[in-house]
Amino acid sequence: MSTEAGALQAEQEIGKPVCGPVMVGLLGHGTVGAAVASMIEQRADAIASLTGRRPTVSGVLTRSRGSFAEILDRSEVVIELIGGIEPARGYVLEALRAGRHVVTANKQLICEHGEELFAAAGRSGVQLRFEAAVAGVVPVVRVLRESLAGIEVKRIHGIVNGTTNFILSAMERGADYEHALAQAQASGFAEADPEADVSGADAAAKMAILARLAFGTPVRLADVRYEGIEHLISDDLQYARELGLSLKLIGTAERLPGGVCVHVHPAFLYAGHPLASIGGQFNAVTVEADAITEITMSGPGAGGPQTASAVLGDLLSVVSGAGSPGPPLLPAVSLPLLADADSAFYLHMEVADEPGVLVAVAGVLDRSGASVKSVLQRGLGENARLVMVTHPLSESRLRSAVREIGELPFVRSAPRAIRVIEEEF
Amino acid sequence: MSTEAGALQAEQEIGKPVCGPVMVGLLGHGTVGAAVASMIEQRADAIASLTGRRPTVSGVLTRSRGSFAEILDRSEVVIELIGGIEPARGYVLEALRAGRHVVTANKQLICEHGEELFAAAGRSGVQLRFEAAVAGVVPVVRVLRESLAGIEVKRIHGIVNGTTNFILSAMERGADYEHALAQAQASGFAEADPEADVSGADAAAKMAILARLAFGTPVRLADVRYEGIEHLISDDLQYARELGLSLKLIGTAERLPGGVCVHVHPAFLYAGHPLASIGGQFNAVTVEADAITEITMSGPGAGGPQTASAVLGDLLSVVSGAGSPGPPLLPAVSLPLLADADSAFYLHMEVADEPGVLVAVAGVLDRSGASVKSVLQRGLGENARLVMVTHPLSESRLRSAVREIGELPFVRSAPRAIRVIEEEF
Repeated sequence: MSTEAGALQAEQEIGKPVCGPVMVGLLGHGTVGAAVASMIEQRADAIASLTGRRPTVSGVLTRSRGSFAEILDRSEVVIELIGGIEPARGYVLEALRAGRHVVTANKQLICEHGEELFAAAGRSGVQLRFEAAVAGVVPVVRVLRESLAGIEVKRIHGIVNGTTNFILSAMERGADYEHALAQAQASGFAEADPEADVSGADAAAKMAILARLAFGTPVRLADVRYEGIEHLISDDLQYARELGLSLKLIGTAERLPGGVCVHVHPAFLYAGHPLASIGGQFNAVTVEADAITEITMSGPGAGGPQTASAVLGDLLSVVSGAGSPGPPLLPAVSLPLLADADSAFYLHMEVADEPGVLVAVAGVLDRSGASVKSVLQRGLGENARLVMVTHPLSESRLRSAVREIGELPFVRSAPRAIRVIEEEF
Repeated sequence: MSTEAGALQAEQEIGKPVCGPVMVGLLGHGTVGAAVASMIEQRADAIASLTGRRPTVSGVLTRSRGSFAEILDRSEVVIELIGGIEPARGYVLEALRAGRHVVTANKQLICEHGEELFAAAGRSGVQLRFEAAVAGVVPVVRVLRESLAGIEVKRIHGIVNGTTNFILSAMERGADYEHALAQAQASGFAEADPEADVSGADAAAKMAILARLAFGTPVRLADVRYEGIEHLISDDLQYARELGLSLKLIGTAERLPGGVCVHVHPAFLYAGHPLASIGGQFNAVTVEADAITEITMSGPGAGGPQTASAVLGDLLSVVSGAGSPGPPLLPAVSLPLLADADSAFYLHMEVADEPGVLVAVAGVLDRSGASVKSVLQRGLGENARLVMVTHPLSESRLRSAVREIGELPFVRSAPRAIRVIEEEF
């Protein structure tokens, strides 16, 4: 270090003077709760030197021990890691109304009761932070509420469920769905009951939260169309690879001329898409806006220490900004929620290897308003495999074309249709 | 929206009540300055409804018009977009000392005089924000200062110069360095004088800033070893492709047992590395820590609207958190700055196609403490091309091995040596 820097350092404080502890009440003591408790203890000195205040756990509420009333009484910040709606909702509301800052990792709670909680926090002038509720340690909540709050976000694409991304990565390497799921369960990346993950419901709740942050419109799980990965077969992934496509469970939240559309579907991505290379249990989110082109953020979407790190980042911001109402939140507006947006589709079917087949299939698509972008036909003895990618059209038009194609005499099996996310750059 | 949400919305404020303007002084009116001025005007209502205060430009200082004293007098926030050290440093210091919040995009200023400015901001209790100084709209400054401030960062890898990344992408497609540079200049991604970019100096200043944020230790440009891309030839990129490697100008800031090491070098990445797929003028940063595994963020590193968006995000945070000292900053500590860290190296040489050559080269490497990880040998008539990747070793050992190999009788040209960043996962 130069002499000048040395002299400057002397006039600068070495760390903030510590003004007293900040008492933190923990609700829930599962994997994440235990990781948060131990991380607060390990990093207490570092946080004290950053913020001037030392975080200290004032109490832990579990199913079998602790009293919420006592913890509330002793805490300036409440961290909710119980999950689910009740009793979490009641505790969080009571804490906010009593003027406590709240940090939560609870996506269901924010998705279903966000407006009630935001309003309660606003009335008490306290902070409500929930980075860990979406995409774990990937800082998408902070970036949407803070870095990008001043610009008009156009679209968000997200891989926000690590379980399904892990399964699809395994299927891309050749495993079938059942084996890939079993592998995810054995590796600890899928629950014994994987329904919420594989159905797309978990991703849908997270995309609803991101849509609220980006567009201001409250979105609940019931407002989001979602489709899971249970019906996918490894053939879908193998054939598509020849077209340079990779298959992910993609959540989309976008601003359209008539309103906002939030949905979750399996979708093919071209190799150049920033989400195409996100493998295994990782999460990633791409935010598009005219002003920024696009930002992509990726990282582990789950795991005890990772989720605890996201909670700790929120806690640190609460402590360093205590007394401020926290990061901005778009005022709630009621934009129309659109059921679906146009999409390009990948179609895959087995057909008789005869002249005129391609013309007939293309003719049905053409009459349905779907123009064909790329075609791959390959002979298989008497049959041929026909793979097509369409230009964007509505799902209803696509479904009606698929029905009609399935009834053509030379088509051996109903076409399989999966969305394709087009490159914009 | 459900009835419950409707009722809740009624009890919630629709936007914050606007309490009066926040006066913003603009220093500099080049590409970014003009973009910031127009973005503040366009988004003033949106920011007012988010923060309760409407940003209003109080004055603009350019080389030919405006008075700094008057602008300072009329402003609560000063945005510095002049660039370079003086007069920017004098203006920013005066603004901070006078109790004004400052937002700047000036990497040189933060790198060379950060401690002086941080101390001045701390004494006045005002905010100093500089997201746009590193990687444009990629929110790495905010994420390091806020999301990750509570954990111990281990290593940062960054592609933080869009010009060199654009040139390397063009070279990867077969262009030679001169043509790729000319193409970058024609597309507006390189300056007429590209020296600061292609030499690695620009990237080095940005990595110095990230090291300060992640580790607390002040780092100036003179403390960073950097190497540029001018000496690279397209062969380097072509041969490496066969090993599944892509070439990027990589900045590294890492915590090592003996201190902190910050350097910038061209480096090969394996295909699975999160920075390997970052092409063209994009920037990206990967932050590694035990607690989070890793986070990667990418987006445009330059451009008027993109950089202006980063400035606007900072302005919004200043306005919504005015009265607070802003995001935490690690207290300055004086850690030893290490000149270099061990690295794996890629070696490429033309040799006579004779028995014993591989053994002799491997023998030299072995005596230098470099074990060989992978080898690719290909005959070219009388000669052969030998490509090797070593396990990590120090650069001085590598250089001495390269000299020794260059003196072996059957080696036709001195080996070319380029760093390789190993996969950790």
